[in-house]
Amino acid sequence: MNKRHVYIISDSTGITAQTLAQSIVSQFEDIKFQTTVIPYVDSIEKAQQTVERINSNCHDGERPIIFDTVIAPNLSEILSGAQGMRFDVLNMYLAPLQVELGQKSTLTVGKAHGRAQDANYKHRIDAVHFAMENDDGAKTRYYDKADVILIGVSRCGKTPTCLYLALQFGIYAANYPITEEDIEDLSLPKVLKEHKHKLFGLTIAPDRLSLIRNERRANSKYASLRQCQNEVREVEGIFRRHGIDFINTTDSSIEEIAATMLDKSGLHRS
Amino acid sequence: MNKRHVYIISDSTGITAQTLAQSIVSQFEDIKFQTTVIPYVDSIEKAQQTVERINSNCHDGERPIIFDTVIAPNLSEILSGAQGMRFDVLNMYLAPLQVELGQKSTLTVGKAHGRAQDANYKHRIDAVHFAMENDDGAKTRYYDKADVILIGVSRCGKTPTCLYLALQFGIYAANYPITEEDIEDLSLPKVLKEHKHKLFGLTIAPDRLSLIRNERRANSKYASLRQCQNEVREVEGIFRRHGIDFINTTDSSIEEIAATMLDKSGLHRS
Repeated sequence: MNKRHVYIISDSTGITAQTLAQSIVSQFEDIKFQTTVIPYVDSIEKAQQTVERINSNCHDGERPIIFDTVIAPNLSEILSGAQGMRFDVLNMYLAPLQVELGQKSTLTVGKAHGRAQDANYKHRIDAVHFAMENDDGAKTRYYDKADVILIGVSRCGKTPTCLYLALQFGIYAANYPITEEDIEDLSLPKVLKEHKHKLFGLTIAPDRLSLIRNERRANSKYASLRQCQNEVREVEGIFRRHGIDFINTTDSSIEEIAATMLDKSGLHRS
Repeated sequence: MNKRHVYIISDSTGITAQTLAQSIVSQFEDIKFQTTVIPYVDSIEKAQQTVERINSNCHDGERPIIFDTVIAPNLSEILSGAQGMRFDVLNMYLAPLQVELGQKSTLTVGKAHGRAQDANYKHRIDAVHFAMENDDGAKTRYYDKADVILIGVSRCGKTPTCLYLALQFGIYAANYPITEEDIEDLSLPKVLKEHKHKLFGLTIAPDRLSLIRNERRANSKYASLRQCQNEVREVEGIFRRHGIDFINTTDSSIEEIAATMLDKSGLHRS
């Protein structure tokens, strides 16, 4: 298999560049990419060190691919000394946008991700604490503050989805597991009824649920295929009976679940 | 203030495109951008609807900016009918990379984020559960499985950082709050000593810590500036005495804390 080195150079965390680079190189399935992220290249000295580091590496005889989101012109100039195929990621957009918008960009380092001091960032962190404290039905008295309450059987993906919604979008997401007792009642627990417009259901294929539960409690009734089939069938019945939107998480990542949920529920992505 | 509409169109979640677009438009501080994300544009019908939706909007007389990561050539062709300034995000890179790598890209939809079935994705979700279960010193018996153990005073940012490390990088991160009792001992708790090479410290400016704690328990001793000053001074003393790497989170977002920590500790970003 062909190999290529990929460098991601950023004056900040490198997270934007890494996300983008990953989505691009993953389009070439026959090549094995070896990725190195070099964050916080924010001084002349660090830029020079980065160039030396790249140029002194052998790269198995193939020139590396370089994704670079360093914005200061003097540092960008130094980085152009690195031998490789270089994408000057931000400038590919900023140059034409400056013309379109009739404005110079402010060329500020590290604007992609929230600063610790701004309100938007604080909201995200508060949302993370909210998700932690309102996980797994532990508390229900703060549901009036929730933007969304995810419901579904145990281990269908509620917790990671809530945390992702909080971290990525600052959404206050609680979750409540529908248990056997709830199912026997054939109705929604009272605490959920009061917040029906915030409910969103997750479901999952019973065989996959059984696999996941077996990792946690091997050979238990809880993990048995029959138990999983029963719970999923009943819970999907509850979703339908009460007109609760739901999605199947079997083949979806939390990013996909979150994006679909936001799209269906009309919640805003901040 | 000038206004501009921004559309982010994706055949998948739209998260890559949104992250990128945000880091780009935030460079123009004098313009207020109004962003609409349109995910899952993965059929001819949806592509046509997207074009109609954009073209029927008035946009206050200014053409919108469109960031598009739809990869199928037939859908991309339809989207080119949207009136605006369009960035065909992936193709800007894929076209030159195909030449460089001597290969056609596989043009697979939605490759940016983990599929629910691949090992890498499963590892991330397991890491999220690990972070939840090993939060706040609740359990210490799984520290042998941890990649890193964050330590610091209460409310210095350990929990959100651990969850971010798990979700974004699949890193098994536990955290342990250093309490007054630990401080009085002037030494590291035994359970931490055993895993000293995994420890990473967080610290924070006392006045900021006091603000954060006051939101939680107003006017308590716990939140008082004097208490915060004492705890921070002592804990930083412990970090120095035991040679534990640490960073100050006062002005840093969790993305920045995580990137710095990974850089210093040499942990791999997956």
